[in-house]
Amino acid sequence: MTWKLMKCGLENPDLLLDESILSLGNGYLGVRGNFEEGYPELFSSIRGAYINAYHDETEIAYGEKLYGFPVMQQKILNVIDAQTVQIYVDDELFSLFEGEIIHFERILHMDAGFAERIVHWKSPKGKEVKIVFRRMASFITRELFALSIRIEPGEGIRKIKIASAVDGDVSNFVDASDPRVGSGHAKRLYVTEARKEEDFSVVKCLTYVTQLEVACVTATDIQAEKYAYSSQAEGGRVEETYVCEGRRPIEFTKFSVYTDTLRHGIEVVEEARMLQERLEGKSFEDLLVEQRAYMDRFWLHSDVEIDGDAAMQESIRFNLFQLLQSVGKDPHSNISAKGLSGEGYEGHYFWDTEIFMFPVFLMTNPEIAKNLLTYRYSILESAKARAKVLGHEKGALFPWRTINGPESSSFFPAGTAQYHISADIAYSYVQYYLATGDEAFLNEAGAEVLFETARLWIDTGHMSGTAFKIDSVTGPDEYTCIVNNNYYTNVMAKHNLLWAAKVYRMLQEKDEAHLNELAERLALNETEAAAWQEAGEKMYLPYDETLKINAQDDSFLQKARWNLKDTPKDKFPLLLHYHPLTLYRYQVCKQADTVLAHFLLEDEQDLATIKNSYDYYEQITTHDSSLSYCIFSIMASKLGYRDKAYHYFKETARLDLDNSHGNTKDGLHMANMGGAWLAIVYGFAGLRIKEAGLSFAPSLPAEWNAFAFHFQYKSRLIFLRIEQDAVKYLLVEGEPVTVYQDGEPIRLEPGKEVAIRESAKRH
Amino acid sequence: MTWKLMKCGLENPDLLLDESILSLGNGYLGVRGNFEEGYPELFSSIRGAYINAYHDETEIAYGEKLYGFPVMQQKILNVIDAQTVQIYVDDELFSLFEGEIIHFERILHMDAGFAERIVHWKSPKGKEVKIVFRRMASFITRELFALSIRIEPGEGIRKIKIASAVDGDVSNFVDASDPRVGSGHAKRLYVTEARKEEDFSVVKCLTYVTQLEVACVTATDIQAEKYAYSSQAEGGRVEETYVCEGRRPIEFTKFSVYTDTLRHGIEVVEEARMLQERLEGKSFEDLLVEQRAYMDRFWLHSDVEIDGDAAMQESIRFNLFQLLQSVGKDPHSNISAKGLSGEGYEGHYFWDTEIFMFPVFLMTNPEIAKNLLTYRYSILESAKARAKVLGHEKGALFPWRTINGPESSSFFPAGTAQYHISADIAYSYVQYYLATGDEAFLNEAGAEVLFETARLWIDTGHMSGTAFKIDSVTGPDEYTCIVNNNYYTNVMAKHNLLWAAKVYRMLQEKDEAHLNELAERLALNETEAAAWQEAGEKMYLPYDETLKINAQDDSFLQKARWNLKDTPKDKFPLLLHYHPLTLYRYQVCKQADTVLAHFLLEDEQDLATIKNSYDYYEQITTHDSSLSYCIFSIMASKLGYRDKAYHYFKETARLDLDNSHGNTKDGLHMANMGGAWLAIVYGFAGLRIKEAGLSFAPSLPAEWNAFAFHFQYKSRLIFLRIEQDAVKYLLVEGEPVTVYQDGEPIRLEPGKEVAIRESAKRH
Repeated sequence: MTWKLMKCGLENPDLLLDESILSLGNGYLGVRGNFEEGYPELFSSIRGAYINAYHDETEIAYGEKLYGFPVMQQKILNVIDAQTVQIYVDDELFSLFEGEIIHFERILHMDAGFAERIVHWKSPKGKEVKIVFRRMASFITRELFALSIRIEPGEGIRKIKIASAVDGDVSNFVDASDPRVGSGHAKRLYVTEARKEEDFSVVKCLTYVTQLEVACVTATDIQAEKYAYSSQAEGGRVEETYVCEGRRPIEFTKFSVYTDTLRHGIEVVEEARMLQERLEGKSFEDLLVEQRAYMDRFWLHSDVEIDGDAAMQESIRFNLFQLLQSVGKDPHSNISAKGLSGEGYEGHYFWDTEIFMFPVFLMTNPEIAKNLLTYRYSILESAKARAKVLGHEKGALFPWRTINGPESSSFFPAGTAQYHISADIAYSYVQYYLATGDEAFLNEAGAEVLFETARLWIDTGHMSGTAFKIDSVTGPDEYTCIVNNNYYTNVMAKHNLLWAAKVYRMLQEKDEAHLNELAERLALNETEAAAWQEAGEKMYLPYDETLKINAQDDSFLQKARWNLKDTPKDKFPLLLHYHPLTLYRYQVCKQADTVLAHFLLEDEQDLATIKNSYDYYEQITTHDSSLSYCIFSIMASKLGYRDKAYHYFKETARLDLDNSHGNTKDGLHMANMGGAWLAIVYGFAGLRIKEAGLSFAPSLPAEWNAFAFHFQYKSRLIFLRIEQDAVKYLLVEGEPVTVYQDGEPIRLEPGKEVAIRESAKRH
Repeated sequence: MTWKLMKCGLENPDLLLDESILSLGNGYLGVRGNFEEGYPELFSSIRGAYINAYHDETEIAYGEKLYGFPVMQQKILNVIDAQTVQIYVDDELFSLFEGEIIHFERILHMDAGFAERIVHWKSPKGKEVKIVFRRMASFITRELFALSIRIEPGEGIRKIKIASAVDGDVSNFVDASDPRVGSGHAKRLYVTEARKEEDFSVVKCLTYVTQLEVACVTATDIQAEKYAYSSQAEGGRVEETYVCEGRRPIEFTKFSVYTDTLRHGIEVVEEARMLQERLEGKSFEDLLVEQRAYMDRFWLHSDVEIDGDAAMQESIRFNLFQLLQSVGKDPHSNISAKGLSGEGYEGHYFWDTEIFMFPVFLMTNPEIAKNLLTYRYSILESAKARAKVLGHEKGALFPWRTINGPESSSFFPAGTAQYHISADIAYSYVQYYLATGDEAFLNEAGAEVLFETARLWIDTGHMSGTAFKIDSVTGPDEYTCIVNNNYYTNVMAKHNLLWAAKVYRMLQEKDEAHLNELAERLALNETEAAAWQEAGEKMYLPYDETLKINAQDDSFLQKARWNLKDTPKDKFPLLLHYHPLTLYRYQVCKQADTVLAHFLLEDEQDLATIKNSYDYYEQITTHDSSLSYCIFSIMASKLGYRDKAYHYFKETARLDLDNSHGNTKDGLHMANMGGAWLAIVYGFAGLRIKEAGLSFAPSLPAEWNAFAFHFQYKSRLIFLRIEQDAVKYLLVEGEPVTVYQDGEPIRLEPGKEVAIRESAKRH
């Protein structure tokens, strides 16, 4: 059953959790797993539908506002609610919280791309119905959210009433007590049209500030023995009612098409109507067939098979499915921290994309990966403007959190100060080039991003003696803010600078016309490129001679060590129980920082230093960030810490399914989901992508019999299976290619499996 | 005329400025120098009356709110307006902005303690009146604001109407564009009573959150040839009207008594009425006589005479007068950053008190100084609670900004992180003890404050090798935040720790019963006191071997130097033009930091280091804070930089009179005013108070013929005059005493002037 996720909680915390877990999406549209009929009033619900990047802006409040603090922040909006369908059995309203449940289950069909709720219910007055709800966010028509409801009336029922609504009077969720949830200003959308047309319900809304429109055009259909139909539009809400008679099962469908002015131009209603018309004649079953075909292709390239561990198999499929559901597939959108499954972090995009999720798509669906980079290129001008505000004469400072470009982070020490995001983005451009060989894209968007981010480092850092140093930034670890020479930042900036210089030279050699165009447009010259090379070469990387580790920053190792052993369990995550200043005063890490740098750029240090660093930082890392376990798992694999690798992987893989951070209700932890895949592919399988080629260092967790996955590399599809006594490679599509395992080249020819047996004893 | 400050601006910026400059106060009540009749609508005005410490609380807004961020902040309130008096000359409303001004002047009588506005005005219709407005905030009855208006009607005037109002419908001033002004939430007070009683107008208001009441009970009186009286109460406003006929001059008086629930219990109206009844029979002239007597006593102890520099003479008297007007004289209140002259910084108390203003009172009016310390003692429990929030097991962390104890600072890097305020307060307790010899107060409030602040340092710092280090705090310089081993903080903490240990030993020897009581109440023991001694002795003080200066902090000197020379003038103050992160990245100081430490604790370093440090930091200090020039002046005096000492003093002394920071409209820069006195007494005269006694190192600015001042020292009143060729000491009151000049003892006997001639050539 690892293709189907089953849920059947009916208590409030479970319901909220399941809303996230069972959310459906396609990268454009996301709909939480609410009950069509809603919950009783005393239950809280985050009832939501979201369109990736569709947002309003709200003013950021500050007690003391200093220069350059962002004035406005973007906020993803809960859009028009098309989920609502209420069912009356004679005069009784169907609700799982009254009467008797004879059968109840919820299934997320990860292989087929839809969700199902199966109910056998006896009403308080003793009438029985069987109802099957099915729903999907179509990957084929991404504007479409479709519902199908089949009702089998039991004995003694005279009529079934179905009341289906489309409601524009919606708000965002507010929880002032948790900084990780969104901030106030819940009502950001108002209804401008709500009416019943001949075939469709039409609701259109407008945001308060950004003046972006969203439309939802809905078509309902019914198959029933006999029915009466009526409709009404009132208060931003259009309701259609079918009163059905007879004993035959009733089939009700509701196709809702969402459009918005970001993608569909100003005639959003007209566009949605056209999309509806194209759907005419399609049944819900037809949609299921299309969806299944799409999912089959996805899984062919993306599935990870785990032999011998059903829980982990379920988890990794769930994670991959949710990544697919969340990732933006048009140039307006990226992947928000919670995907399209909730409102946590306001729907903002962070470095999470590049470091934790981009690699999944890069290796399985490189076109999606390319779109993520294209999105970053689309906000380059914003990043350049932001650099100016931060006092830089040149360069691009990418926003720590944003939807459409402007910085939305209001706490700069763990926000704007995390300059490394600019190097993280540059790193992804390079990884994309190395994994795909797409030199054209590197030369176009890539070169400009690399050049502008390199400029940022030149202007941020300074020569001190013979070393290039970078002061007053924050690394990945948010328990240690605004430091000098954060190892992670410096080594990533070094990579950024050297690749900028390299791409400059590549263009000089191969495409001087393009370089000239760029040089003119960006006021760039060879001296500047030489400065990148020099700063990169002279980059200062803090190293502690006593501990023989890379210091997280200049002062980190001089601080007192936090006593994690004696910290009560209920004080975690520390950020919810200690003032940031208290945390800054100690050696204590929220997440992998130097250890992450050693993953991303392992050739910068010898293995002994990497091992010492791991051993040291592991002792003082709380993993209070969901971006931490996966990196510790990957590095444990590298260092041969087999048990730790599996332990950290497990924590990663089931974080949302087990709600181990306690806040899955606000949305899924998307980066962690990417991290689970990374822990398998970069961790257990030991994948690395470097200029020298693609390499593996496979290992197999003791708990597994084998694991296998496909990946793409320079237009090839390759299958890798790691078994107890063999590692097997198969070039499924594409030209012959050489990859490396533990330093040894392996030549892959189409269709010929290569089994490496000597390296297999990996338990 | 150095006892009278003359102003006659009538343009809007000047009017706003003069509202601050000509504000009246007595430490309890403050009233801005508004026109009784107001300005035309298009002119902006900050019309205000304030009661020290009378405040409401407002919620602090955060984009991202982390643990321990203050939820509420206090805000001083603009209270009931009793200034308003409108005068009609026949049917024409008197206004300086219409008709013709034949004569107009405003005078602040600093010797007599009142303000005057003299007007000779011709109305648009050609009728002339002479009007003299006088006003005072009484030092004798501190609840009293009194107005006197004398009107001489000219030819052809049939009647003069006087409409006097008391208005409870008031708000605070809002300027969202400047972080140094208060934040939103302007309306914090609502009227609960507004009526005319037989003798009085009564207005009472209540705050929204703190539920503090304020009452204003007003009595008006008129002397006129013939008049008709009427009154009305409406919309929170009570208006009394006198319509006078006849040619004789009219004398109108208005005595307004303010009471509040902080000081006057719950029957605030009754209390105000009783105070009014006690004033019965007193004329404005009688009040002037009382006030003058008070002022005479003040000036006898506090005046600084400058011979040969009228501008500086005027400035220093203005500064001293405003300090007296601002300083709280009851245990509920302190001195806010803007005194009672405006709403800037929300009426909060900062370290400004201890380091820049407390010494003025300590040496001239030690009872007032003692009250300032008593206030700090009164908020010790708040400071202990705050320390807990910041993760400390024990100790007291005084709030960076507060009115009644809780931290009101919402930007912690330049707020709560400025832990040094706790050591600054401890330092003031020690200075008070050394200057007054008041051991009883040291043992009572002093011991507890010293012990609890010492505990803070033990818990904040840690042993690193053989040195005690303090990480992640912010020193005085707000352009460099959250650093390790800030020299200022460490050296002040050292002083704090060693004095705590010393007072513990003193109590052991002299008052063991009290020590036992304290030890039990505070769970204190000898081991803890020994730890204070040890941490103090081992305190790490950063020193740079190459530059031979004290480094501002561990990393300061490793950063790039800000290029001040090439920074355009319109980019100052830097904080209004650069993001804090940009500033943190460079060696650039908003204000004296290490240089201030070298002033307060000069014996911690040799003179060469102090000089090198001064020379170094002067090059990178912008003096964007108004707390900077005075310290550079003092230290320039010490180091023999005579021209600089005078230059920096001048910038200090006239900062508000010349509005050189451009924001005097929001209130006077009180700490800077204290600093001007410090620059004379601690700077030119070279006063220091140490355990070894009181010492001077006099110098005389080249621009002056002589300067002189009184000061108090251990119950003595001493007069010091520094002339071109002599320094003269006179013990005016008290027992014989020895003081020191340039290391040499000087024995002072009552009534005998001692003139030191050999040290006199100081130009």
